[in-house]
Amino acid sequence: MQDFSVTTGPICGSQKAYSASPERPDIKVPFRDVIVDEQEQPLQRLYDTSGPYTDQSVSISLEDGLPKIRDEWLEKRSFAVKNEVEPQPGTTVPFCPASHKVRVGQKTQHVTQLEHARAGIVTEEMVYAAWRENLGRKRISEGAQDIRAQRGQREGAPLPAYITPEFVRDEIAAGRAILPANINHPELEPMVIGRNFLVKINANIGNSAVTPGVAAEVEKMVWATRWGADTVMDLSTGKHIRQVRSWIMRNSPVPIGTVPIYEALERVGNDPLALNWDVFRETLIHQAEQGVDYFTIHAGVRLAHIPLTAKRVTGIVSRGGSILARWCLDGHRESFLYEHFEEICEICKRYDIALSLGDGLRPGSIADANDEAQFAELKTLGELTQVAWKYGCQVMIEGPGHVPMHLIHENMEKQKEFCAEAPFYTLGPLTTDIAPGYDHITSAIGAAMIGWFGTAMLCYVTPKEHLGLPDRDDVKTGVITYKLAAHAADLAKGHPAAQERDNALSRARFAFRWEDQFNLALDPDTARAFHDETMPKESHKTAHFCSMCGPKFCSMKISQDIRDETARLEGMAEKSEQFRKQGGALYVETV
Amino acid sequence: MQDFSVTTGPICGSQKAYSASPERPDIKVPFRDVIVDEQEQPLQRLYDTSGPYTDQSVSISLEDGLPKIRDEWLEKRSFAVKNEVEPQPGTTVPFCPASHKVRVGQKTQHVTQLEHARAGIVTEEMVYAAWRENLGRKRISEGAQDIRAQRGQREGAPLPAYITPEFVRDEIAAGRAILPANINHPELEPMVIGRNFLVKINANIGNSAVTPGVAAEVEKMVWATRWGADTVMDLSTGKHIRQVRSWIMRNSPVPIGTVPIYEALERVGNDPLALNWDVFRETLIHQAEQGVDYFTIHAGVRLAHIPLTAKRVTGIVSRGGSILARWCLDGHRESFLYEHFEEICEICKRYDIALSLGDGLRPGSIADANDEAQFAELKTLGELTQVAWKYGCQVMIEGPGHVPMHLIHENMEKQKEFCAEAPFYTLGPLTTDIAPGYDHITSAIGAAMIGWFGTAMLCYVTPKEHLGLPDRDDVKTGVITYKLAAHAADLAKGHPAAQERDNALSRARFAFRWEDQFNLALDPDTARAFHDETMPKESHKTAHFCSMCGPKFCSMKISQDIRDETARLEGMAEKSEQFRKQGGALYVETV
Repeated sequence: MQDFSVTTGPICGSQKAYSASPERPDIKVPFRDVIVDEQEQPLQRLYDTSGPYTDQSVSISLEDGLPKIRDEWLEKRSFAVKNEVEPQPGTTVPFCPASHKVRVGQKTQHVTQLEHARAGIVTEEMVYAAWRENLGRKRISEGAQDIRAQRGQREGAPLPAYITPEFVRDEIAAGRAILPANINHPELEPMVIGRNFLVKINANIGNSAVTPGVAAEVEKMVWATRWGADTVMDLSTGKHIRQVRSWIMRNSPVPIGTVPIYEALERVGNDPLALNWDVFRETLIHQAEQGVDYFTIHAGVRLAHIPLTAKRVTGIVSRGGSILARWCLDGHRESFLYEHFEEICEICKRYDIALSLGDGLRPGSIADANDEAQFAELKTLGELTQVAWKYGCQVMIEGPGHVPMHLIHENMEKQKEFCAEAPFYTLGPLTTDIAPGYDHITSAIGAAMIGWFGTAMLCYVTPKEHLGLPDRDDVKTGVITYKLAAHAADLAKGHPAAQERDNALSRARFAFRWEDQFNLALDPDTARAFHDETMPKESHKTAHFCSMCGPKFCSMKISQDIRDETARLEGMAEKSEQFRKQGGALYVETV
Repeated sequence: MQDFSVTTGPICGSQKAYSASPERPDIKVPFRDVIVDEQEQPLQRLYDTSGPYTDQSVSISLEDGLPKIRDEWLEKRSFAVKNEVEPQPGTTVPFCPASHKVRVGQKTQHVTQLEHARAGIVTEEMVYAAWRENLGRKRISEGAQDIRAQRGQREGAPLPAYITPEFVRDEIAAGRAILPANINHPELEPMVIGRNFLVKINANIGNSAVTPGVAAEVEKMVWATRWGADTVMDLSTGKHIRQVRSWIMRNSPVPIGTVPIYEALERVGNDPLALNWDVFRETLIHQAEQGVDYFTIHAGVRLAHIPLTAKRVTGIVSRGGSILARWCLDGHRESFLYEHFEEICEICKRYDIALSLGDGLRPGSIADANDEAQFAELKTLGELTQVAWKYGCQVMIEGPGHVPMHLIHENMEKQKEFCAEAPFYTLGPLTTDIAPGYDHITSAIGAAMIGWFGTAMLCYVTPKEHLGLPDRDDVKTGVITYKLAAHAADLAKGHPAAQERDNALSRARFAFRWEDQFNLALDPDTARAFHDETMPKESHKTAHFCSMCGPKFCSMKISQDIRDETARLEGMAEKSEQFRKQGGALYVETV
């Protein structure tokens, strides 16, 4: 762990910015400002998930962990405090030495964001998340909101033009949104997941028995959030699960999710049949104390559902689902996750861990999409949602998987119906099975569509899906691909802030401001490198023609030249008059 | 041109197959068979666009050109014959020396596929294309067809389970499909474009003033068709346009499209204002004699439409469109393409060149999508469709561009309405502007959706879009991305043959037949290479676990193990009985 370093420094062409919430000036929210060569709007403000790593004024030490920005807020809530999580000797991988106070909420006090919301309390986390969603925009008039609302198709989502902390609170209280924030993750920069907010994306990381490695996983977390991952799931299955997680938790600015059954299985020597409630409970508590923000729990894999997978082309493809199915079939018993679900909720309530109800029976192929097994499980997840809410726990629902385009909408509709509008969190879905090596793309198609239809968070798929473990490049490709899918969904929903960035980039493109075009892109480095391949010289970066066509054929150039010509047109006096009123330019910005 | 070679040999794991049409046993249609380790279906038959290059028994000589498989059919149609296209001296790039007889149809005879279809004649090309669409499948009962029809959502497309030559003829006669096949392109392997057939894709190639190069362009054509491009557009704008094209034409098994205004502009010294009908007419005839199968004609860019682009964020972004707009504005005159459109049709009729009516005013940004300028032009394209049909010409309509998801469906609906169901041929559309470097993906989302809605052919976008000229790798990435988008559309439409390949690959995946999974993929080489990165050993290719999770955690493995366990379950006697009747396996193939 000695030569253990992560990527730091701002993204090319951008600078870190902090903006105070108008409601709570003491709460400062990070953004990324792209510096643009435009008089009216020289900075394009973007949502920023990258944490202090892109802030040049912060010195990063993985041993110390990130600044604990929530500590002050959590102090005031008077939680009981335990000793630190025990560092465990005996393995070659150490625990992260960063100090870590373990908080435990009581049954009788408000712990979860849902409990606070129901009590009408606006937490600091809600203030933070609200201002983040606004991208620092000022409140605009309701009239402007209506115009925007007409442009998108929202499937019933209100998407207000300005997000107040109270709106965040009300969405959480209604169960339509979650704010995953374990009270033992004080380093977290709060964010909200729900269909009336920006569509979020999750990146999976994690070592496995095939490719162990600790340092690489922490860098993957930093790397994934650098490019826009809103949450990260640590799916490690190897020996050093807890140690790796301690480094990730203490250094993560985003919510961390896990699938606790993986660690539980590790604890019982990797024999699914040796699993039991006690081991699982211990695992949950350990992870809760470490600060994990959400748990995937496959409690919908009930004994009665398993035979429904019998005629499938690809049976059960979820790891968690298949482990549970194996356990249930052995001895013909009901899932212990289902039977102990209320106790799981009791634990999650005490730490404010959001439940991500896992789809262990999701389809693993186009042929198996939207089948009886899948929807039977989804109904059970709906029942469990009500149980979790009873305990004051936040809940989201995981979804498929492999689904052809024409069956995607039904997934969203059934999920809303069965699960009372709890946020939907889908893996893709992949819209065809025939492109291994390109499944980030087959799934981005499905992800963009289901995001538009109302899915709150999209779990990324990398090019290595079905084939191998993603490396650093694959993580970046997966994140960028899902950022563009989520953004396409925000555009289609008519999200008030979404189109601003498209317009800024398009204006830069049309005006041949090459550097601005690169810097406004989701991936400035790749855009610049591709341009360099065709036109490597520095002078080309200010060239008033496009690298596709060359100077004489460039449509953008001709189109701009037309500005002058048009003015001379006969019969256009009226139009000209109109243009003059608008300031004399033919091409008027439509932002 | 000496060390001028192209990629040959079969795709990994596949073999070339020829299958005779049941209606015309003398007409043999090429397919690709993937060799699979399954008893019931040891060969998975695929549509094959790669021509003789993947046939090991054919020796390729670019100087001689491809075998002229249509010569015999064309001979019988008694066209007048001219001398060969004149080889032009004086440039450093020679013309392709392959022999080439120039045919010219007469006004009074049936030349085009549309004229034949209207007269009730089934041409050899129609027989060929019909059998190709069937992928060699036997006619199945109408009952089976109905079951399949329920599975997809077709937006009114009938998509019969078995394509007869008469069905192809009738779709062409109705104008709902085209079969682009210049009588001077005898090397062509005929194919059909229409929404009641498999969704097709086009790849653009072409050198430019920035990166000249001839050999690379011919290889790009061979390379693009190897991976599945159904047609190729040569968009060259450099000096040696005609010479390059002669090599491409004589060696292309797929229809070649061009944008003749590029060559016309070259002929007048690259000054848009010097363009005139005479030069354009000469260009058309030269390209017609060379064998170009379809022309993009931007005749919808009328003078009156140009001011409608005034308020746009990105003005006019089509090269052809901007050249025409410049010409129109100079002297305030109507487009010569619009004014001479009937003469253009007369030329196209004599060689059977399909018209691809270009969308010169397509939106170049999300902000400009579905605006007045775009739809005004589309209406004009609808008028021109009727004119072309009057002359017996085949027509398709080009479409956008940049469109957010929620505005895509309107494009398809308006196109069908304005253009009387002539096939739609779209570029993407890109669903966001913010991902230069990833626009193959932003556009694959839109392409898959609009393909599902009824677009007949999707023009690919490469990762270099907006940034630079695509190299060989970019061409492949673009083609594979569009193949998967087109296939996702076929699946959503419930195309009878589409899901077979998904099921075959998914069965291979579930049974850990790694080599079969790779070989059934759109890109076997990349799938294999990705697997090798994580699990390089040969023994891993037969491993009964997934490289994502390792042997103890593999859900597929556990899921397969469940087969045995399930049988022992109490209360499942009835189910067991049912399974026994199906042959004893719990997981029954559902193909």
